[in-house]
Amino acid sequence: MKKIEPHLSEKTFRGKLFRVIYESGTIGGKLFNVTLISCIVISVLIVSLDSIESVSIRYGKALLYAEWVITILFSIEFALRITCVKKPLKYLFSFMGLVDLLSILPLYLSFFFTGTKYFVVIRTFRILRIFRILKMWNFVEASHQLTKALYISSIKIGVFILFLLVLVVIIGSLMHLIEGGKHGFDSIPHSIYWAIVTLTTVGYGDIAPKTPAGRLFASVIMLLGYGIIAVPTGIVTAELVKFTKIPHAKSVHSCPSCGKEGHDTDAHFCKFCGEKL
Amino acid sequence: MKKIEPHLSEKTFRGKLFRVIYESGTIGGKLFNVTLISCIVISVLIVSLDSIESVSIRYGKALLYAEWVITILFSIEFALRITCVKKPLKYLFSFMGLVDLLSILPLYLSFFFTGTKYFVVIRTFRILRIFRILKMWNFVEASHQLTKALYISSIKIGVFILFLLVLVVIIGSLMHLIEGGKHGFDSIPHSIYWAIVTLTTVGYGDIAPKTPAGRLFASVIMLLGYGIIAVPTGIVTAELVKFTKIPHAKSVHSCPSCGKEGHDTDAHFCKFCGEKL
Amino acid sequence: MKKIEPHLSEKTFRGKLFRVIYESGTIGGKLFNVTLISCIVISVLIVSLDSIESVSIRYGKALLYAEWVITILFSIEFALRITCVKKPLKYLFSFMGLVDLLSILPLYLSFFFTGTKYFVVIRTFRILRIFRILKMWNFVEASHQLTKALYISSIKIGVFILFLLVLVVIIGSLMHLIEGGKHGFDSIPHSIYWAIVTLTTVGYGDIAPKTPAGRLFASVIMLLGYGIIAVPTGIVTAELVKFTKIPHAKSVHSCPSCGKEGHDTDAHFCKFCGEKL
Amino acid sequence: MKKIEPHLSEKTFRGKLFRVIYESGTIGGKLFNVTLISCIVISVLIVSLDSIESVSIRYGKALLYAEWVITILFSIEFALRITCVKKPLKYLFSFMGLVDLLSILPLYLSFFFTGTKYFVVIRTFRILRIFRILKMWNFVEASHQLTKALYISSIKIGVFILFLLVLVVIIGSLMHLIEGGKHGFDSIPHSIYWAIVTLTTVGYGDIAPKTPAGRLFASVIMLLGYGIIAVPTGIVTAELVKFTKIPHAKSVHSCPSCGKEGHDTDAHFCKFCGEKL
Repeated sequence: MKKIEPHLSEKTFRGKLFRVIYESGTIGGKLFNVTLISCIVISVLIVSLDSIESVSIRYGKALLYAEWVITILFSIEFALRITCVKKPLKYLFSFMGLVDLLSILPLYLSFFFTGTKYFVVIRTFRILRIFRILKMWNFVEASHQLTKALYISSIKIGVFILFLLVLVVIIGSLMHLIEGGKHGFDSIPHSIYWAIVTLTTVGYGDIAPKTPAGRLFASVIMLLGYGIIAVPTGIVTAELVKFTKIPHAKSVHSCPSCGKEGHDTDAHFCKFCGEKL
Repeated sequence: MKKIEPHLSEKTFRGKLFRVIYESGTIGGKLFNVTLISCIVISVLIVSLDSIESVSIRYGKALLYAEWVITILFSIEFALRITCVKKPLKYLFSFMGLVDLLSILPLYLSFFFTGTKYFVVIRTFRILRIFRILKMWNFVEASHQLTKALYISSIKIGVFILFLLVLVVIIGSLMHLIEGGKHGFDSIPHSIYWAIVTLTTVGYGDIAPKTPAGRLFASVIMLLGYGIIAVPTGIVTAELVKFTKIPHAKSVHSCPSCGKEGHDTDAHFCKFCGEKL
Repeated sequence: MKKIEPHLSEKTFRGKLFRVIYESGTIGGKLFNVTLISCIVISVLIVSLDSIESVSIRYGKALLYAEWVITILFSIEFALRITCVKKPLKYLFSFMGLVDLLSILPLYLSFFFTGTKYFVVIRTFRILRIFRILKMWNFVEASHQLTKALYISSIKIGVFILFLLVLVVIIGSLMHLIEGGKHGFDSIPHSIYWAIVTLTTVGYGDIAPKTPAGRLFASVIMLLGYGIIAVPTGIVTAELVKFTKIPHAKSVHSCPSCGKEGHDTDAHFCKFCGEKL
Repeated sequence: MKKIEPHLSEKTFRGKLFRVIYESGTIGGKLFNVTLISCIVISVLIVSLDSIESVSIRYGKALLYAEWVITILFSIEFALRITCVKKPLKYLFSFMGLVDLLSILPLYLSFFFTGTKYFVVIRTFRILRIFRILKMWNFVEASHQLTKALYISSIKIGVFILFLLVLVVIIGSLMHLIEGGKHGFDSIPHSIYWAIVTLTTVGYGDIAPKTPAGRLFASVIMLLGYGIIAVPTGIVTAELVKFTKIPHAKSVHSCPSCGKEGHDTDAHFCKFCGEKL
């Protein structure tokens, strides 16, 4: 977003506003961000609590009021963003723009059609606000390396998951045959679901082999998956290791005659000029 | 397969065909592969849906028709492959040849003997087509490194799994004694199955220790497995790290004449302009 | 703690005491530490056994006596610590000081108010003594590297967990909608709990998707988590790799005069005898 | 064992025998080992099958006969080992000697006292034969690196598990309080068992938090364990990485004037003599 308006005039109100909203460097910006994050966290808590029946029955009213306050705050923020951005439409149809809109609309819509089953779904859109926090992401220093390593690995991990998908389809259909469509393996999709649950070592246990053959096969799969789980880890680690410079076991003393460094710890003579160390 | 016919004459129909089917480089080849993959995915979906009782009852007919279309397409492909390959028999008895055959036969066989219990098994062979996707594997660039790392590690992981097998047999029989053949540990094989489920951290929970002694032993096993799970990961990672070039520790001093940096700590002359450092 | 009193006079009793309690180097110190650890382990066992109803009913009395012995020993230790430390208050309000106090108080308090529900909670504070073992931590050589690697990674892992939290909130609320608030996904917090259980591959199975859509989504999450679990491992490993010195590629040629090997590829003179290579 | 009798005279029968039994290099030795391993595998299968009630009822007799054959074979082997080893007693009281004895005795003992409850336990000792396979271990080339890496890491992993034990005790007792001794958290040991099951991501689900507070705490533990599980992996990987020499990005061309190698791929001039490359 920073790019939209790089050198906006210092004087105008829009300029000041822009700097506060989009430039986290300034004091105003920091303050703005902190407030925003806390508002998001609060709103997420409200939505979550609201989803608990017992709570929503007792504190429903209080939550609604709180929701109103939050929503109005977000509406103001939304309005401000549109005013100070150069290309309002561009922002409006950007991912974040839509998130912002979707997260404030529900409550307003609640005037027109209420109590409808689908409305619960719409209201939950408010949780989308949390995406904003992901936007703060780039402000966190440590995240860069992670993101980079993940980005580089993403292709390899993608290929790996593709390979995994083929594997689970085969395992799933085999298991469907072995267990004879019983014990939860009643269809290939369910068996594939089991295969994924097993290979990823999640292992809910809602579906588990009962027949000896099935358990034998499952054991093989698990041992196999044991080796397979190593792959994504290996990929990401290998990428992360790249970023860490590995120190060689070198002595810190430089040669007395030629003053060169980088001698092995077991060196008696300078490897460059042959002088006694 | 590419090897079978390296420089087949450009003019003949067989030659053109061969290039389309076996050479993914050409436009025709690309088109062919994309169509093939989508056909495979569709057929896999059909088989999967077909295995869901509720679906097969309602949409059984539609699925059968779709299956027919797909099967005919695969039959044509199969015929073409045989015609254009130099050694049809060699292809026919290759792994992929058998897969192709096994994946089209079932439907044709359905004329002669139907509704038999075993027939369900045979029909599921159609899912084998998915192996074809694994053949496309080599076309994916990123896969090479993975395959190589896995191939190199395969022996070590094999040895490791062998070691694991011995371990689970011992753990299993001990657990069978400790739990006194109760709580699902009713036989050594079942206890071994439990041991595998536990050591691989899958942990279905369909079998779990109930006695204090059993739980204590299980806890030890889990903590032990906690350290053991690290091994395959370590193996694969170590192999993958090999492929990643780790930046060498460089001197911080820049060249006095050209000002370039990134010289080795032991360099006497600038590697860019040849000036004395 | 060692810092509090670096060069306390050798002669005074307090000085001797201080050396015994806080300096693990001396024989007295070693003895003291060993006794302390064993006391802690015993007291932890007592508290644990005491919490098992069947045991506490039968051996309640014996456990109480044992508890008394242990508590008195700890009280003495506590008294000694206060006497020999230069700034008793500073120690008293340090984390360890509070732990020591909290771990001996409960039993004494048991005179005044007993049998109260909250008292069980207070008594369990005795288990806090185990923190003392963590204090011995620094005395274990091998732990340094671990602690350091963990400390360095802690920030990155923190950021990663923050990212994870945002992820599970989104996954949770989506799952809450997909499963329609049934099958244990009755509220967003519960669904978030499920998301965490799944992403960490713990997979209790107390909450598991039942609807096809839910299972499909869960499968995606698991495969996703499969790649994600690699990240913390990668981070810590990368840090630990830093500490391991990787053997530098060495020249295969041995010194012509002394015949020793292991020279750097860029060495001009033998690092052992100083001869020209 | 090889050590016991390094250069035993070629001629004597004992010498020949020794070579066959203890030296896997000779053809006789290879043959002997293969037979031994297959016998072990068979006997393990017998014991396992024997433990399955339905099987032991139907095929009990057949299994007993097979067991007899195997046991006699092992008895002969045992006798031969004693005869050809220089120090029979030393062998007899070595770990492997005891394993050999324990694995053949049960059946012979079955003459004297049968059907006793403890006898089942004794019979299961036969499974100990599998330890023999671990003895073959050293013959497997690839295992060396693994064993070495594990041996080096063992101390660190030990320290780590110690740290884990302290952690699970604290987590367990806290969870015992939070869940109020309900939902399987009825005692601290059980809660500790749960903590281990959770931290190792095994997650049986036989014990799982039900209260909101408990689930919240469990979530924290899981995310925490998510980072912790990385540690053992990191340790082993770091050790394994040591064994892999990481290639530096160096040009293979040597300097035309001084002939030195090890120039960076981007070097234009020799870093040693400053000549144009």
